[in-house]
Amino acid sequence: MTTSRRLRLGMVGGGQGAFIGGVHRIAARLDDKYELVAGALSSDPERARASAAELHIAPDRAYGSFEEMATAEAAREDGIDACAIVTPNHVHAAAAKAMLNAGIHVICDKPMTSTLEDALELVDTVKKSGLVFALTHNYTGYPMVRQARSMVEAGDLGAIRVIQVEYPQDWLTTKLEDTGQKQAEWRTDPTRSGLGGCIGDIGTHAYNLASFISGLDVHELCADLSTFVDGRKLDDNVHVMLRYDGGARGMLWASQVAPGNENALKIRIYGEKGGLFWEQEYPNHLSFAPFGKAPQTITRAGAGAGDIAAHGTRIPAGHPEGYLEGFANIYSDVAEVISARLENREPESMATHFPTVVDGAKGVKFITAAVESSNKGGVWVDATLDV
Amino acid sequence: MTTSRRLRLGMVGGGQGAFIGGVHRIAARLDDKYELVAGALSSDPERARASAAELHIAPDRAYGSFEEMATAEAAREDGIDACAIVTPNHVHAAAAKAMLNAGIHVICDKPMTSTLEDALELVDTVKKSGLVFALTHNYTGYPMVRQARSMVEAGDLGAIRVIQVEYPQDWLTTKLEDTGQKQAEWRTDPTRSGLGGCIGDIGTHAYNLASFISGLDVHELCADLSTFVDGRKLDDNVHVMLRYDGGARGMLWASQVAPGNENALKIRIYGEKGGLFWEQEYPNHLSFAPFGKAPQTITRAGAGAGDIAAHGTRIPAGHPEGYLEGFANIYSDVAEVISARLENREPESMATHFPTVVDGAKGVKFITAAVESSNKGGVWVDATLDV
Amino acid sequence: MTTSRRLRLGMVGGGQGAFIGGVHRIAARLDDKYELVAGALSSDPERARASAAELHIAPDRAYGSFEEMATAEAAREDGIDACAIVTPNHVHAAAAKAMLNAGIHVICDKPMTSTLEDALELVDTVKKSGLVFALTHNYTGYPMVRQARSMVEAGDLGAIRVIQVEYPQDWLTTKLEDTGQKQAEWRTDPTRSGLGGCIGDIGTHAYNLASFISGLDVHELCADLSTFVDGRKLDDNVHVMLRYDGGARGMLWASQVAPGNENALKIRIYGEKGGLFWEQEYPNHLSFAPFGKAPQTITRAGAGAGDIAAHGTRIPAGHPEGYLEGFANIYSDVAEVISARLENREPESMATHFPTVVDGAKGVKFITAAVESSNKGGVWVDATLDV
Amino acid sequence: MTTSRRLRLGMVGGGQGAFIGGVHRIAARLDDKYELVAGALSSDPERARASAAELHIAPDRAYGSFEEMATAEAAREDGIDACAIVTPNHVHAAAAKAMLNAGIHVICDKPMTSTLEDALELVDTVKKSGLVFALTHNYTGYPMVRQARSMVEAGDLGAIRVIQVEYPQDWLTTKLEDTGQKQAEWRTDPTRSGLGGCIGDIGTHAYNLASFISGLDVHELCADLSTFVDGRKLDDNVHVMLRYDGGARGMLWASQVAPGNENALKIRIYGEKGGLFWEQEYPNHLSFAPFGKAPQTITRAGAGAGDIAAHGTRIPAGHPEGYLEGFANIYSDVAEVISARLENREPESMATHFPTVVDGAKGVKFITAAVESSNKGGVWVDATLDV
Repeated sequence: MTTSRRLRLGMVGGGQGAFIGGVHRIAARLDDKYELVAGALSSDPERARASAAELHIAPDRAYGSFEEMATAEAAREDGIDACAIVTPNHVHAAAAKAMLNAGIHVICDKPMTSTLEDALELVDTVKKSGLVFALTHNYTGYPMVRQARSMVEAGDLGAIRVIQVEYPQDWLTTKLEDTGQKQAEWRTDPTRSGLGGCIGDIGTHAYNLASFISGLDVHELCADLSTFVDGRKLDDNVHVMLRYDGGARGMLWASQVAPGNENALKIRIYGEKGGLFWEQEYPNHLSFAPFGKAPQTITRAGAGAGDIAAHGTRIPAGHPEGYLEGFANIYSDVAEVISARLENREPESMATHFPTVVDGAKGVKFITAAVESSNKGGVWVDATLDV
Repeated sequence: MTTSRRLRLGMVGGGQGAFIGGVHRIAARLDDKYELVAGALSSDPERARASAAELHIAPDRAYGSFEEMATAEAAREDGIDACAIVTPNHVHAAAAKAMLNAGIHVICDKPMTSTLEDALELVDTVKKSGLVFALTHNYTGYPMVRQARSMVEAGDLGAIRVIQVEYPQDWLTTKLEDTGQKQAEWRTDPTRSGLGGCIGDIGTHAYNLASFISGLDVHELCADLSTFVDGRKLDDNVHVMLRYDGGARGMLWASQVAPGNENALKIRIYGEKGGLFWEQEYPNHLSFAPFGKAPQTITRAGAGAGDIAAHGTRIPAGHPEGYLEGFANIYSDVAEVISARLENREPESMATHFPTVVDGAKGVKFITAAVESSNKGGVWVDATLDV
Repeated sequence: MTTSRRLRLGMVGGGQGAFIGGVHRIAARLDDKYELVAGALSSDPERARASAAELHIAPDRAYGSFEEMATAEAAREDGIDACAIVTPNHVHAAAAKAMLNAGIHVICDKPMTSTLEDALELVDTVKKSGLVFALTHNYTGYPMVRQARSMVEAGDLGAIRVIQVEYPQDWLTTKLEDTGQKQAEWRTDPTRSGLGGCIGDIGTHAYNLASFISGLDVHELCADLSTFVDGRKLDDNVHVMLRYDGGARGMLWASQVAPGNENALKIRIYGEKGGLFWEQEYPNHLSFAPFGKAPQTITRAGAGAGDIAAHGTRIPAGHPEGYLEGFANIYSDVAEVISARLENREPESMATHFPTVVDGAKGVKFITAAVESSNKGGVWVDATLDV
Repeated sequence: MTTSRRLRLGMVGGGQGAFIGGVHRIAARLDDKYELVAGALSSDPERARASAAELHIAPDRAYGSFEEMATAEAAREDGIDACAIVTPNHVHAAAAKAMLNAGIHVICDKPMTSTLEDALELVDTVKKSGLVFALTHNYTGYPMVRQARSMVEAGDLGAIRVIQVEYPQDWLTTKLEDTGQKQAEWRTDPTRSGLGGCIGDIGTHAYNLASFISGLDVHELCADLSTFVDGRKLDDNVHVMLRYDGGARGMLWASQVAPGNENALKIRIYGEKGGLFWEQEYPNHLSFAPFGKAPQTITRAGAGAGDIAAHGTRIPAGHPEGYLEGFANIYSDVAEVISARLENREPESMATHFPTVVDGAKGVKFITAAVESSNKGGVWVDATLDV
C-alpha cells in the first residue's frame, strides 16, 4: 500500500490549561497521519500565542479567532485539510460552520452543540458542504467496542432485549467548580455547557455507545436528573429508562458524584442468544456469554477478535492499548476517509464507522429530551429525531 | 457462655424436588442450633412421607398438611419451637398464620405473601402473637452486607445520594417453564407466585438489600416491567427508578433473561463522603472508596471488618464463606432470639437484625407498586407503607 | 435412593480454642451424614469436659484420652463408626493407630504425621486394617478442583508441561507466636509441627493440590526455605522448583509473611493444548484457556462443568459455595464409602477420590525432601516415595 | 517552561515486517519530542528504501547500513541527535558502538547484547563517550511501576523479604518458528538471539523489573530452563530461584508456552511492613497492602499516586494509558536528558531513571548465569556483575 501524505490539521481551542485539546493532538499524532500546523487555541490572544509556540506552530499560523483561521487557511496553498474543534460546547457550532464554509473538514468534540437548534442547523451545513464531519465520541474507537458492534450485527446475541449502560465518575463529589478548577467551571456552567451537566458531559457518551454497539435508536425515555451538590447549576447525577426501537429496554446511569468511580463507563447488552459486557477502564477485554455455554473473554488481538478489532490495533495481545489509542482510531479513520477523497479512491471500508453529525444531533436530542422529561417530574417523552 | 439446647424445627414445603427447602435445612443445621423433627413437606402425601424418611424425621411427625402439623406439634411436650415455611409464595400466609396461632415461631421464605392484603394481615397476626417472625431475605445474612450497613449507619458515607442495585440472572432466557422444570413452572405462574415474576422472585431481594444497607425507605417509584419470552405469564425483566426518603435516588434492575449472569446481585451506595460496592458472587469482599483516598477492599475477617462482620463469621480471612453460611446466619440469629426468650434473657444484640414481617410487607408493597406503575405505562407511584 | 443412617463420629482434639476442629464438625454436619457422639477433645480434662458439653456430647462419651475413647467406643454396641483427628501434627500418628486398631475408620488432618517414619508406619497400619483412612487435604473437595482434575484426565490440556502452584498468607508477618495466639504457637513449634513450618502447614496443601489435579508425582525438587521473622524456629517462606514424572516442571511458593495475602492458594497448569487456572479465594470459578481459542470461565453448576463438579454441589450456579462446603465434600464422600461398606454395596464412584494415607505419606516425604534440599544449600534431591 | 526543539531521531532496524520498530516510533512521536528523519531500516536495501518512504523519511537519509548512517549523519549540520536500535539482538552492540563513536546518543532495545563480552565492552564505550545510552526496558516506564519503586524507596514496605516476578506468554506453545512468522524465527534462533530464548526475550524484562522496583541486585541464582516444543533451539520456559543482596529471596517464572497468557508480566514484592502487586495487563493499578490494614488500590492519577506517577501521566484517572504510553515515557525522559545537555541545563530529576547500559549488562549477566546454572543441572551460580 502507498502512504498518504500527512494531513494538515488546525485546532480551535485547546490552549494552555485545557484538557481535551491535548488528547486530540496526541490522537492525531499517534499514527503519524496529521501534522498540526495552525491554531486558534484560545480566545485570550496572549495565551493563544504562547500555546502555539509550545506546539511548534509557526507564529503566522497562530490565529486570534477561528473566523480568522478559517479565512486565512482557506486562502493558503498549504492550508489545513481538517480542523479539530475542542472548545467548550457553546462554541462548537459556530466554529464548525466557519470551517465547513471555508471547505475544511471538521473533527468536533462532544456534545456537538449546546442547543438542539444549533445541532439541526449543523446537520444541514454538513450535508450541504459535502465535507467530512466527525464527532469524537471517542469510546467508539476502542477495538473491543467495535468488536462488540460487529458481533451484534452478525447476530451473535440474537434480537436485543436489554441494554444497561452506565458512566459514573466521582470528580464532582464536592463543589470543585468553586475552587478555580477550569474543567469543573465550564462543565457546570449552563452558559458554556448548555442544558445538561452530567448528562451532556458523559451521559451522552453512554447514550451514543449503547446505540453504536446495538445499532438501535431510542424512541422514548423517562429521566430523573438530580443535582446533589448544593448550589451547583446543572445536574450531577442522571437516571434514565430507555425504550428502544424493536422492543429492547434500557437503563442509563451517569454520575459525577459516585466516589470510587474514576471514568467507569460500562455497557452490557443482552439478547435472545447471549450477552456482551465491556468496560472502558479495562478496554482490551470483551466478555461474551453465549447462552448455555461457558462465558468467554475476547481480547484485543487475541483469539476470537475479528478484523474490525485488528483494524484499530497497533500491538500484540496482552500489550494494553488505552484511551489515547482508542481516540487515535477515530482520528486515523477520519484521515483515511479524507485522504481517500484527496487521492480520488474509496476509503478502506473499516475506516468509515466514526460518529457523524447525525450522531451528534441525536446526542443533543437525548440531552434535550432527558432534561424535558425530568423537568416534568420524570415522564416518558419522545426521543426520536428525524435527520 | 452456656450452650442453649438445639431448637426443634418443623418445615412446611421443601419435599423432594424442591430447591429452597434444602437450603433452609442446611442453614438450620450449619451451626448446630436446630434439629429438624417435624414436617409437612409436600401436599402429595406419598412424597411427604418419603421426604420425611430421607430427612430422618420420625414417621409420626411427617404430617399431611401444615394445619395438622400445627395442631399436633402444639399439643406435644416436645413440640417444635419454630417452623420454616418454604412453599411457593401463595401458601406462605396461611401456613404462617397456622403456626403463629399455635404458638410456634416462624421463619418464612420470601416474598412474604402473594397479595398485599395477606401481607398486612400477617403483620397483624405476628404483632398479636408476640412471636418471632423472620423473613429469609438471606442476603442480609452475609457478613459484608452487615458490615456495609454498619458503615452507613456510622456515617462513613455521609448522607446517601445514589443507590444502584441490580440482580440479573439468565436461567429464564428461554421458556424453561415449558420443559417441566418445577422451579421455572411455579415462579412464572401467577396463581402460585402472585403478581410479580422476576420482580417478586429476585427484584424484591434487591429492593430489600438496598433498604437494609442504606437504612432508607423508598417513597416513590417508576417501573418498566417487561416480558421478553413469548407466552410467559409474568415479567422477566424489571427496570425501576427509585426516590428514597431524604432525597437519595436509586435504580433497580432485575432480570432473568440476561445471559452470562448467574445470580449477580450487586449493590453500590454513594454518599457525600464515600462509596461502597458489594456483589453476592464474591461475598467475602466489600469495596470502600472514601472520597479523595485510595479505595480499599475490606474482607470478611480481615483488617477493617468490624464486630458485626465477625459475628457472622466462622473461619479465618481468605477461607471463603458463601451463600449457605449467609443463610445460616439468619437461622442462627433467629435461634439466638428464640433461645433468649426460652431462657428468659436478652438476646445478643448483634443477632437481632434479621428481616421481619414488616420488611416482608414492604417487599410485597414494592411488588404491588411496581406492577401498578408499569401497568399504567411507567408512571411514578407511591411506595410507602404504614405498618 | 435409600438414605443411609447417620454415621456416628468421634473426634480427637478440637476442644475450646482450637480452629480446625470446628471446621471438621461443620463439614461433618453440613450434609447431615454424621452425628458427633464422642470426643477426646483436649489433653486438659477440664477443657475436654466443657468442650464436650458445648457440643451436646453425652458426658459418658467425653473421654480424657484418645486411647480411652478407642477402647470404650469399640466396646459399645452404638460405638463410633469413624473418628476425626484434629490435634497438632505430632499426635496424629498415635491417635490414628489407636482408632484403626480398634476397628474405627479415620479422618485425619494434614500434614499426616510429623516424621516420615510415622507416615510409613501408618501406611502399613491402614493397609493391614482394611479400614478407610481419609486425609483432609480439603482443597481437593472443591468442585472446580475436581473439575480441573477431570479435565486434565480427559486430555483437555494435552501433555502437561508447566505447573505453577502457590499458597501465600500473611498472618505470620510479625512474631505472632509470642503473643499467646495458640495457632501461631504450635504451628511454629518443631516439637508439635515437625520439621516444617510454612512448608508443612500450607506448602503441603499446595503440593498435594498440584498432584491431585495433574495426576503427576514429583521425582526431584530443589528448595530454598527461609525464616524471615527473627527468632522464629521454623521456615516461614518456601521456594521450591519441581521436576515431575513425564517431564513437566513446576514451581511452588508458600509463604506466611506475604502481606495482603489471606489464604491465596492458586494453581495454574499448562499443557500442550491449553491451560487451567483456579484460586481458592474464588473457588466457584475455573479458568480454561484452550490454546488458540478465547479463554473461558467454567463455574460450579454452570455451563461447561461436568458431573464431578455437580457431585459436590448443593446449590445453583451463582450461589457461592466456599471452604466449608469443599471440606464437607470430603466428609460426605468418606461417609458414602463407609456407608457402602456397612450396607454391603459399592460406593458411588465419584465419592472415592478423597486423599488417602498414601497421599499423606507423599506429603510428609515432600516436607522431608524440601527441608533436606534447603539444608544442603538448595540442591536437587529425590522426592519419590514407594508406598 | 520553554519548549525544547524536537530531537532528530534515526533508527537502525524496524523496517517492514518488524514489530518493535513501530513501537519505538510511536513512543518517540507520542509526546512530540522527536522527529524521525533518518534510518537504516533493513539490511535488505529494497526494503530499507520502501520502509523509509512509508515513514516520510527523505530518500537521502534512507541508508543501506548503520555504519553509513552514522558517518553521514555525524557530518550533517542537521544530523540526528539520537538513534534507536531495534534490530535482532546480535546487531545491537555493533550498531550502538557505531553511533556512540559518531557522537550520537543511543536508545537500544533489550536484551542489550547477545554475549556478556559485548555487553561489558559496550559499558566501556558508553562511559568513554559520555553520551546518553538508554535501554528500553519499557515496563519501567509505566507510572505505577515507578510509583511502586518510589514506595519501596520511601520504606513503605520496610525491608524487602520476598519478590515473586513472572512473565508468561503463550505465543510459542506450538512451533510457530516453522511457519514463517518472522518474530518467532529470530527469537528462537541462537545466532540472532544469543544464548537465551524465553529467558532473553522476556525473562530479562522480569529480572530488570524486579531490580528496578526493589532497588536490589541478585547475587546468586538457580535456574531450570526447559524447551518443551520439540526441535526448538532455545529455552521456552524458565524457572529461577533468586537470592538478593540483603537477604530477600525471589522466584522468577517466564514462559512462552503457557496457554491463556498473552503478556502477563506480574510482580509482587513483600516486605516487613507491606506488600505491592502490579500486573502489566492492568497497568493503571497498583495494589498496596500495608500489613494489618485493608489493602488499597492506587491508580495512576488517582488518590495515593505520587509525583513520579504524575510525571508519566497524560490523562486523568480512569482514562487508561497502556503499553505505548509507558514506552513513550522512556523516550520522553531520554529526550529531556538529551535536551538538557543541548540547552546546558540540569534535566528534570524525575526524568533520569530510565534503564542504562549498566542495567543492560546486568540483564545479559542474568541470561548468562541462568543458562550456566541450568546447563549444570540447576545449581546455584554467582549472578553479580561489577560494572
